[in-house]
Amino acid sequence: MRVDVLTLFPEMFEGVFGSSILGKARERGLVSLNTVNFRDYANNKHNTVDDTPYGGGGGMVLKPDPIFAAVEAVTGRMTPTEPDDDPAEARAHAQEAAIEGQAEMESSRPPRVILMCPQGETFTQTKAQELSREEHLIFICGHYEGYDERIRSHLVTDELSIGDYVLTGGELPAMAVVDAVVRLLPGVLGNESSAVTDSFSDGLLEYPHYTRPVNFRGLQVPDVLLSGHHAEIDKWRRQQSLLRTHARRPELLEGAALSDKEKKWLEDAVKAQRDNAAR
Amino acid sequence: MRVDVLTLFPEMFEGVFGSSILGKARERGLVSLNTVNFRDYANNKHNTVDDTPYGGGGGMVLKPDPIFAAVEAVTGRMTPTEPDDDPAEARAHAQEAAIEGQAEMESSRPPRVILMCPQGETFTQTKAQELSREEHLIFICGHYEGYDERIRSHLVTDELSIGDYVLTGGELPAMAVVDAVVRLLPGVLGNESSAVTDSFSDGLLEYPHYTRPVNFRGLQVPDVLLSGHHAEIDKWRRQQSLLRTHARRPELLEGAALSDKEKKWLEDAVKAQRDNAAR
Repeated sequence: MRVDVLTLFPEMFEGVFGSSILGKARERGLVSLNTVNFRDYANNKHNTVDDTPYGGGGGMVLKPDPIFAAVEAVTGRMTPTEPDDDPAEARAHAQEAAIEGQAEMESSRPPRVILMCPQGETFTQTKAQELSREEHLIFICGHYEGYDERIRSHLVTDELSIGDYVLTGGELPAMAVVDAVVRLLPGVLGNESSAVTDSFSDGLLEYPHYTRPVNFRGLQVPDVLLSGHHAEIDKWRRQQSLLRTHARRPELLEGAALSDKEKKWLEDAVKAQRDNAAR
Repeated sequence: MRVDVLTLFPEMFEGVFGSSILGKARERGLVSLNTVNFRDYANNKHNTVDDTPYGGGGGMVLKPDPIFAAVEAVTGRMTPTEPDDDPAEARAHAQEAAIEGQAEMESSRPPRVILMCPQGETFTQTKAQELSREEHLIFICGHYEGYDERIRSHLVTDELSIGDYVLTGGELPAMAVVDAVVRLLPGVLGNESSAVTDSFSDGLLEYPHYTRPVNFRGLQVPDVLLSGHHAEIDKWRRQQSLLRTHARRPELLEGAALSDKEKKWLEDAVKAQRDNAAR
């Protein structure tokens, strides 16, 4: 997979793209991670990438020209700009054509051009899985400025937000999306690192973990975990997952596969806790 | 405000804490941003910070000792570990005491100790505002390992998640929370940068922005924005905000203050769009 990030702050990415899982994936050639300063594509004497908005109001707006030019430099193709063009649709058509034409066309599968912005679709693990099947991702990161609407309507295929909070720019969100996607690529995660996070796959929150020492300043590891009785341990862990999910994210229980026996157990346990608290 | 981040990957933070708004806030002394490698507090000969889980299973678990020791080095106080202690409650009591004792106690207001983890409360702008009123934030970042439960139950005051996707570690989430919080501190944002993002404050998504050129490869700026007619421009922008919010995040309309006239307009406009699409 190839990832290009368009940003005015490429230095923000150095530590993140160079460390840990991303750094290792890059070293082993599993992913190519690049930053592009789109100020280099400002075709004017002051290297201006933003300007005041038409119609007045505060703030600055990122101009279309440098961002179109930077994306085109990365992809090696011009972007069609008929007023009715929709880049997401055009991409879907090109992808169909590529599938029909098979192998010889495969390498010309068009990239996903992703705008990081608070108005975008909320990023989820499902979206991470979808993006992990692509060959080429291009991220556009604005930085407190707005985007000229023509970037949105004619250049990008996806708009993504990582959550309902206001950040200074699209850089941290782009890093989060890249991290979530790259760790799903084949060969990136070793067994030792995938095990813990994979415990999410049953749709419940994780059960409590304990490691050495057994007694830490008077706080003990639960006896069952020291018992060596595997069936009891599995049962305790599953029950703790259910209790924690119920307490913190009850909406997740809807989508999780609970047996009738588990539903009944959870109901009784929650009732017992409530009675206990009331006493 | 003082921020300490406990991590095994302090180099990931250099570019982010040194650039843009965070870098400037730091230079101007508005915030102190530090990283602490908690491996330095592993009190054993191999500098081990994690170990296998009691009860078996894959993955590694972060040990309690190095993280308790690192937090205590940062705060200069020991953490009480009676089995029934709840750190969030203890903190609330200490804060009450500080408010009663007023000025001389103020500087001893206890820090918030925040664990970044997928099971945490989902971070929102409201939480960012709450944290921006604190004096001292400590973030604990795990890295694909689990946390020993005693860290959760006796050391941390908050557990936060930035969204429903799996990341390699707590580092990127901690950066996002720090960015969202620090930009709210008095004096950090200049007027030029606050204007655009503040348009979220009405609870709707932003209207489209346009800047030069008027004609970009055949794509035109809407006439109304060039008209100079401010009442018409305001009306167009508000309508575009309503349409975009309806199309992308309809649930936000519930909480937004719409006049009856606006509700009626939006209903008609959506119906007209639908009729248009059906033809």
